[in-house]
Amino acid sequence: MVFEGISKENASEILSEAKMILERYRSKDLILNMSRGKPCPEQIDLSSELFFSVNPDDCIGEEGVDCRNYGELSGIIEMKRVFSEILDIPVDKICIGGNSSLDLMFNTFSRAYTKGLPDSEKPWSKYDSIKFLCPVPGYDRHFAVSEYYGMEMINIPMLKTGPDMIMVENLVKENPSIKGIWCVPVFSNPDGCVYSDDTVERLAKMECAAKDFTIMWDASYKVHSLYDEEIEIANILEECEKYGNSNRALIFASTSKITHAGAGVVCIGGSKESIKAYLKTATISTIGYDKINMLRHARFLKNKAGVLSKMKKHAEILLPKFEMVNEIFSRNLDRYNIAGWTNPRGGYFISMNVFPGTAKRVYSLCKEAGVTLTSPGATFPYGYDPEDSNIRIAPTFPSVTELSDACEIISMAVIITAAEVYLNS
Amino acid sequence: MVFEGISKENASEILSEAKMILERYRSKDLILNMSRGKPCPEQIDLSSELFFSVNPDDCIGEEGVDCRNYGELSGIIEMKRVFSEILDIPVDKICIGGNSSLDLMFNTFSRAYTKGLPDSEKPWSKYDSIKFLCPVPGYDRHFAVSEYYGMEMINIPMLKTGPDMIMVENLVKENPSIKGIWCVPVFSNPDGCVYSDDTVERLAKMECAAKDFTIMWDASYKVHSLYDEEIEIANILEECEKYGNSNRALIFASTSKITHAGAGVVCIGGSKESIKAYLKTATISTIGYDKINMLRHARFLKNKAGVLSKMKKHAEILLPKFEMVNEIFSRNLDRYNIAGWTNPRGGYFISMNVFPGTAKRVYSLCKEAGVTLTSPGATFPYGYDPEDSNIRIAPTFPSVTELSDACEIISMAVIITAAEVYLNS
Repeated sequence: MVFEGISKENASEILSEAKMILERYRSKDLILNMSRGKPCPEQIDLSSELFFSVNPDDCIGEEGVDCRNYGELSGIIEMKRVFSEILDIPVDKICIGGNSSLDLMFNTFSRAYTKGLPDSEKPWSKYDSIKFLCPVPGYDRHFAVSEYYGMEMINIPMLKTGPDMIMVENLVKENPSIKGIWCVPVFSNPDGCVYSDDTVERLAKMECAAKDFTIMWDASYKVHSLYDEEIEIANILEECEKYGNSNRALIFASTSKITHAGAGVVCIGGSKESIKAYLKTATISTIGYDKINMLRHARFLKNKAGVLSKMKKHAEILLPKFEMVNEIFSRNLDRYNIAGWTNPRGGYFISMNVFPGTAKRVYSLCKEAGVTLTSPGATFPYGYDPEDSNIRIAPTFPSVTELSDACEIISMAVIITAAEVYLNS
Repeated sequence: MVFEGISKENASEILSEAKMILERYRSKDLILNMSRGKPCPEQIDLSSELFFSVNPDDCIGEEGVDCRNYGELSGIIEMKRVFSEILDIPVDKICIGGNSSLDLMFNTFSRAYTKGLPDSEKPWSKYDSIKFLCPVPGYDRHFAVSEYYGMEMINIPMLKTGPDMIMVENLVKENPSIKGIWCVPVFSNPDGCVYSDDTVERLAKMECAAKDFTIMWDASYKVHSLYDEEIEIANILEECEKYGNSNRALIFASTSKITHAGAGVVCIGGSKESIKAYLKTATISTIGYDKINMLRHARFLKNKAGVLSKMKKHAEILLPKFEMVNEIFSRNLDRYNIAGWTNPRGGYFISMNVFPGTAKRVYSLCKEAGVTLTSPGATFPYGYDPEDSNIRIAPTFPSVTELSDACEIISMAVIITAAEVYLNS
């Protein structure tokens, strides 16, 4: 119950006050873009040494390859090793790509459509219809890739433990046109959920009508703890192997939010057969990826310990921001019971649920006051949030002052829309 | 006529001597890989300053974008300007990609198959059969992309002026399933041919049964003169516009053979509509390409004059190699009239035609003596040279000494095979 124990008269006063506060912010002509999960300048400065980690006279990798020349389609061993340690995947099940893990995911679908994946009976383009499971709320760019390929997307509610596995198991068992599921297993975008070991195991072992059912395992936030803790969940690749579904999971990761966003290096991991199939297409589409940048990253990051120590510095910058969001929302909203939000232990987002049917209105009010949030609905397939309730807060990029203003504005917008609903009820 | 005016007895002596010389080389246990067009270490060293052209404190591009963070899908203006000057295409008709122009070409086909190009009636995957014109000899990686997408490839003979335009015009006029042509207009791979203005104009204006007929214009070697001369041919994009076929040509270029091979930056050029269509898919597949590397390149290369001055230094390294190949072949082969080879004014290859039916044998003899050439047939679709005659020589990577040995070996292999044919005739 919203505004429980508050009279309509009181609610009316609350509404007026919130409007007044919002108006005061509006007159400040703020321009705050919180729509994307971008690192802030201070985070980016943490990797300045990256510029100096490789010099013209030391461009030869461990295995003797000159990183300034063609070759080594699968990437250099030293960078494979870094990802191998982070993801707990053997180096021979990893290939290094360019600067975009999204690109590797997109290319995986392109390959599935044109040629099929190792366990496919035929290319996906030869089916009348392909369906894909989309845990919601989720990452809009994942959904956009599925939409581009004309897949029918099925919403799967996110629970505290990950996607609703009972629903997933029932769907995939019966329906051969369901070809896979998008997963962000650690600090999911936007909920910050960490999949339970049980969820991982069930994804690996569940019976799928589609032999080539594919888990798109986006490990973007694997090392992105806000607190000094290492997140270890069950190993999806090992679990899949254990249950005889070796080719089921493809793992993706990137250093974009470890070093420089959009100028990092990325990887794909999978069974040996999956990697072989990946390389068979990659050798047609490119001579190789940028090995100088791989070498630069390998020397800068060194190993898992090196990565974790960098991530600790990121957390020092980010934790105060996440805490501030929680504090401002709590202070403004707790007493009215009109919104819920996550308080994640890592990742890049805070996921807020406002009174159903009001997320768009909250977005508009914020926009008018100078705060651009992620478009409402973006966290759902087709940009359609059936409840019109979820709002993704991306607190990383703005400065602490900007973030404070933004959170006050969001709070007032939430109060205004909820009060309007209450007063009209 | 091979061995004209030479008796079989004499030919037999020539054969014995060539075999003896080859045997002498074989005993040296040489390992010379001349299969790919790779720059040599001295060329790569020309771009050492690239490592220092951007520093952590000057990563902001001209238009205010921090190149260490997300954004600018189409690339940064300063790098667009460099390609714009080289290719004579306005900056708003250029997007900068990653490190591989082949990848951009592959992705173009992927897009054509999944969605179609701007003038397509339907996606290419919806046709029973798609055909593509392949000037031969040509670039094996182009043909591999066409083959991957299941296209039927049609060989078009290369003339001194470019592809045989009478054949091209007749084919495309009648056949709506012919969707395009691969072109390397300047210093073609491997012939080193420069298309005539007449060829460019005819490609632009010819009547095509397929509305979405696409010219894949790979300008890889646009500035790769061996002599101090600037190659200017008719502007394909302007010609296409002039004849009302604005979307017909897509232009690709790369700095891989200007700065660092596989660690450069690349571009795609085309009509505004083509660029818009490209970006519509690119925004699904990636957040953006590596802008730090773009900035690095833009600051290092500066402009067209900067690029040309670097290319002059490349030529100083390469010209002696090309001249040496020609000199050794001339010395060993001229008198027997058993092979022809190009003496190009730029590019990365020398194209040799040996006695029909003997290219594979020449390749094997070279291989036994430690010289790996590009696989015979590779310069033709499906790896099949109907004449078994063309051999691609890639003289850039080996040192002068290695190259000298390799050319002697190739010469002897050519003499041996030709003499065997002559003696058995």
